[in-house]
Amino acid sequence: MTSTSVITIAVDAMGGDFAPQAVLEGVSAALAADPSLRVLLVGSAETVEPFAMVNDHCEAVATSQVIEMGEHPAAAVRGKKDSSIVVGCRLVKEGRADGFFSAGSTGAAMAAATLVIGRIKGVQRPAIATVLPTASAPCVLLDVGANADCKPEHLAQFAAMGAAYATAALGIRAPRVGLLNIGEEPGKGSQLAQDAYDLMVGTPGFVGNVEGRDIPAGTVDVIVTDGFTGNVVLKLMEGMSKHLLGEFKAALMSSPVNKVAAAVLKPSLGALRDKLDPDLHGAAPLLGVDGLALIGHGSSSPRAIASALRVGAVAVRAGLVDSIAASLGREGA
Amino acid sequence: MTSTSVITIAVDAMGGDFAPQAVLEGVSAALAADPSLRVLLVGSAETVEPFAMVNDHCEAVATSQVIEMGEHPAAAVRGKKDSSIVVGCRLVKEGRADGFFSAGSTGAAMAAATLVIGRIKGVQRPAIATVLPTASAPCVLLDVGANADCKPEHLAQFAAMGAAYATAALGIRAPRVGLLNIGEEPGKGSQLAQDAYDLMVGTPGFVGNVEGRDIPAGTVDVIVTDGFTGNVVLKLMEGMSKHLLGEFKAALMSSPVNKVAAAVLKPSLGALRDKLDPDLHGAAPLLGVDGLALIGHGSSSPRAIASALRVGAVAVRAGLVDSIAASLGREGA
Repeated sequence: MTSTSVITIAVDAMGGDFAPQAVLEGVSAALAADPSLRVLLVGSAETVEPFAMVNDHCEAVATSQVIEMGEHPAAAVRGKKDSSIVVGCRLVKEGRADGFFSAGSTGAAMAAATLVIGRIKGVQRPAIATVLPTASAPCVLLDVGANADCKPEHLAQFAAMGAAYATAALGIRAPRVGLLNIGEEPGKGSQLAQDAYDLMVGTPGFVGNVEGRDIPAGTVDVIVTDGFTGNVVLKLMEGMSKHLLGEFKAALMSSPVNKVAAAVLKPSLGALRDKLDPDLHGAAPLLGVDGLALIGHGSSSPRAIASALRVGAVAVRAGLVDSIAASLGREGA
Repeated sequence: MTSTSVITIAVDAMGGDFAPQAVLEGVSAALAADPSLRVLLVGSAETVEPFAMVNDHCEAVATSQVIEMGEHPAAAVRGKKDSSIVVGCRLVKEGRADGFFSAGSTGAAMAAATLVIGRIKGVQRPAIATVLPTASAPCVLLDVGANADCKPEHLAQFAAMGAAYATAALGIRAPRVGLLNIGEEPGKGSQLAQDAYDLMVGTPGFVGNVEGRDIPAGTVDVIVTDGFTGNVVLKLMEGMSKHLLGEFKAALMSSPVNKVAAAVLKPSLGALRDKLDPDLHGAAPLLGVDGLALIGHGSSSPRAIASALRVGAVAVRAGLVDSIAASLGREGA
């Protein structure tokens, strides 16, 4: 599944706030950038067929149903067998695609990936992993929302899966793994964090607790937490970046002489904005399912979608799913 | 206790990374700024007596013990009856001070406030409340670390106490209260968040769930969460502000022409840094104890300490403790 030189990604043409237009533009850009990428474009015939007709390395897979944002995820996945999300996951399950990407309903994509593709043997709970920009190197944070309530053994598995992802997606050979907590010393924090710490001690790469302020500093390569805390952290970081860039922009525009200075600084500030841009990584994989399932932000831009497909191809080439299976075997041994 | 025109605050001279020097400078600045403020300076005789000798409105309270940062909080409070933290709280309990401030061990200050001053009748768990800078008006966040594990009924009490604090400290008459969660709709989130939501529905000011991205946007006046999530949020925001300002500074200094432009912008950027400065509020009260107990950051600067005393005087004048007691009476009614 992971060793062919051509990488095939199934893409949900119907998912996301700006679908299908943003998806089609993102797919075009990704295909242009990577000649060994092949896309199975899944969605309504009138959307996917004309696009596949005029784009090399793209094949249309027409579906008759769409899962809307408000639907109950598991019920929608069970009820809409010919939806773009369910069909996309089935393509992975059947080995016709190496991975699946959707910027549609996160809940439905998670439910479809888990129900249709299935879990890697031994995985208790799949987790969504995201890559954060930090002051030093990028850092993997998981879970960012698949599991609002977690047990200590879930967090210990997240550590192994997150480390495998850091190696596969970021090329970090021996990732340093930290547990998000509210104190540095062992014995600090909630009962969940204390129990997870005890389980994680001695596992490869575990460096102990990290605190909120360590996240943007980038002191570790992988940060493990429950899906409630992780989701709050991810959305807070997005909000803070937007807020502070806004404040900065307002300061630059606050007088005529400031505006002149701001014009001089424009290229440097553009580079900074790009560095902080969450679109750079584009999508978050649901780690623990037996195939690559990538979940994009609902507001994904064409650029984010192109990034997602690039990240997906990197993960497939690096053998992410097999290395997660192997790491859980080691963790369980 | 709260209605005299002179406000008396007991101050721990021994607490904080830069004590006693930073504390003494902060007290000087606060006394100079507010002629109706009186300080009981608590600490070793050689520190507090010479200072009180030369500063009006300051009285020395000599103590023989100090609680160190590494000590077990409750054990230290029980064992060191003549420590600056325990004596400071006793001054509040005995009505000799209207409030107590320490930048020393947060755990010890919490334990002393709870054990020595005692809780307001009906309070299940005191909570630490902090004031965050946001894109619009400042916002109260609680709990930021007193209770790593919470029950739904604790969060419902935090809502009432946080609203009383927003009124007393920020002058907001009818604060909007949000529950920090990982989705906007009812029924989202962890079991704790779902159960807390159900308890909070219908209470005055409750507007529903808020998400991580809403925190810096300032969409509500009070954000309620458990002490684990709140502590992660607080430290992440501090870390993000520092990180992003560092990135801006690096961008401004990245070329000679940028440096010239940066010089032009310096006053505006200084104003922005001040706006984001956590020192502006200086200290976080432990809400729910039967007297004002203010906890400062270990790294408190003289400016932060002066702000803390100013905030303390405002809270005393506004009758914070009585209004919390009244709000809990209403909540329980």
